[in-house]
Amino acid sequence: MKDRSSHRAGVLKFGDASGERVDDQLAAEEPLEIRIDGTPLTVVMRTPGHDRELASGFLFGEGIIRSVDDLLGLDVLPNGEHPDLENIIDVRLAPSAPGVDRRWQRNFVSASSCGLCGVSTIDAIHAAAPPLPDDDLVIDPDLIYGLDARLRAEQAVFARTGGLHAAGLFTATGDPVAVREDIGRHNAVDKVIGYALEHRLIPLDRHLLMVSGRSSFEIVQKALQARIPVLVAVSAPSSLARDLAQTSNQTLIGFLRGRSLNVYAGRRRIRS
Amino acid sequence: MKDRSSHRAGVLKFGDASGERVDDQLAAEEPLEIRIDGTPLTVVMRTPGHDRELASGFLFGEGIIRSVDDLLGLDVLPNGEHPDLENIIDVRLAPSAPGVDRRWQRNFVSASSCGLCGVSTIDAIHAAAPPLPDDDLVIDPDLIYGLDARLRAEQAVFARTGGLHAAGLFTATGDPVAVREDIGRHNAVDKVIGYALEHRLIPLDRHLLMVSGRSSFEIVQKALQARIPVLVAVSAPSSLARDLAQTSNQTLIGFLRGRSLNVYAGRRRIRS
Repeated sequence: MKDRSSHRAGVLKFGDASGERVDDQLAAEEPLEIRIDGTPLTVVMRTPGHDRELASGFLFGEGIIRSVDDLLGLDVLPNGEHPDLENIIDVRLAPSAPGVDRRWQRNFVSASSCGLCGVSTIDAIHAAAPPLPDDDLVIDPDLIYGLDARLRAEQAVFARTGGLHAAGLFTATGDPVAVREDIGRHNAVDKVIGYALEHRLIPLDRHLLMVSGRSSFEIVQKALQARIPVLVAVSAPSSLARDLAQTSNQTLIGFLRGRSLNVYAGRRRIRS
Repeated sequence: MKDRSSHRAGVLKFGDASGERVDDQLAAEEPLEIRIDGTPLTVVMRTPGHDRELASGFLFGEGIIRSVDDLLGLDVLPNGEHPDLENIIDVRLAPSAPGVDRRWQRNFVSASSCGLCGVSTIDAIHAAAPPLPDDDLVIDPDLIYGLDARLRAEQAVFARTGGLHAAGLFTATGDPVAVREDIGRHNAVDKVIGYALEHRLIPLDRHLLMVSGRSSFEIVQKALQARIPVLVAVSAPSSLARDLAQTSNQTLIGFLRGRSLNVYAGRRRIRS
């Protein structure tokens, strides 16, 4: 399959280079339909590439699978008139998989009328993914200062397009395990977790997750489900992201810029 | 209702200000349940504030309403044990409203097996919102160079938190009509379009929409539905955003930085 992660685009420049026509590379955005045993489940807008990881990471996040053993196979299906696009993935579940029913049940819980405040939203998350146990993981801030540059160094498509989010999984000693890019922040995290699933690395209880933008509630939730103790973001967390990290015994770092960072939760894992 | 758009958070700083404990403001993220005539439709994670605009803009984007006349009322409901949170909105539809059925139909179309390529996705969009007609709108690049600063000047919560997206609606002469912030980029656009709905400004065929980040397919789609001819983003568009703007007779600008910008589609509306 050819690289469809970016497309060429003609651009007319104004300003410094006024009137200049140049070729630019745009980050690709295409729909991916995920099916479960032939039945359409959802359509995700994503940047093509690592689609099997995206599908398995997404299903893990939704509680439809718990491990790679819950997968019998992930088949890319031909797509009618456009067989080259590879925009349909059919996931065959093992009998052991929790499956789709549980997903709807979870949505129902979190959307029930008494469930719409931070506290009860977090309670619903913890019912599926309990807080992390105490551990003895301690990370040197110097190691974290370097993650930003390491993430950027692996971002091949960003370098071309300037328009992609990235998520990187690192060991506790700062070695990159997998870095994935996507036009959707959540997708980049799903791809990284899908990689970890396929390589049987979950629980990721000695790993760090680094994301290129902000950390939202859902990013912290995905990290918790994969049992990742340390989440590092380039920008700010949301209030609910901080609340979830705090009550889940996770370490949450934001505003990593050069040799400076903010710790919002779980400071005991950062050597001071 | 008190301002819940940001929350205070204790932060431990490392690096330049190592070991310093400071108070920071985090952009608030809370769920909002949108109901139609008492039936839950969806839960959106959003930054509290302008929730009625968010709900009406969202419903407009989903094709559930077409104008403010399709709304009989938007009621904020008490939320069980947390009546202060105002996290439920019940929308009463007029008999004239297209309603929810059409939404599901649309989803079905866009998720059908032959619909998963850029071309047919765009065809499905155009069935609901046809390309813009030709117009004589011509904008001076100097006007657009100033939009970035105008948007930022209106971003009250961003100034406190450094962590929010913004969308701004401007007249063709660069006057701000409404600027809204949200932790979700799409929500900020929905709020602005909800404002325009409530003030009967749609079709917005003499307006510009400015967004703080990238322009995705869905942002271009929302602009098209509100008939906005010019979309300006601080960062890059995706490939599908560009394709949709091009085939919809919209002007798409990216990488607005100081006195420089890139035109990806509809260059005839930019004076050269």
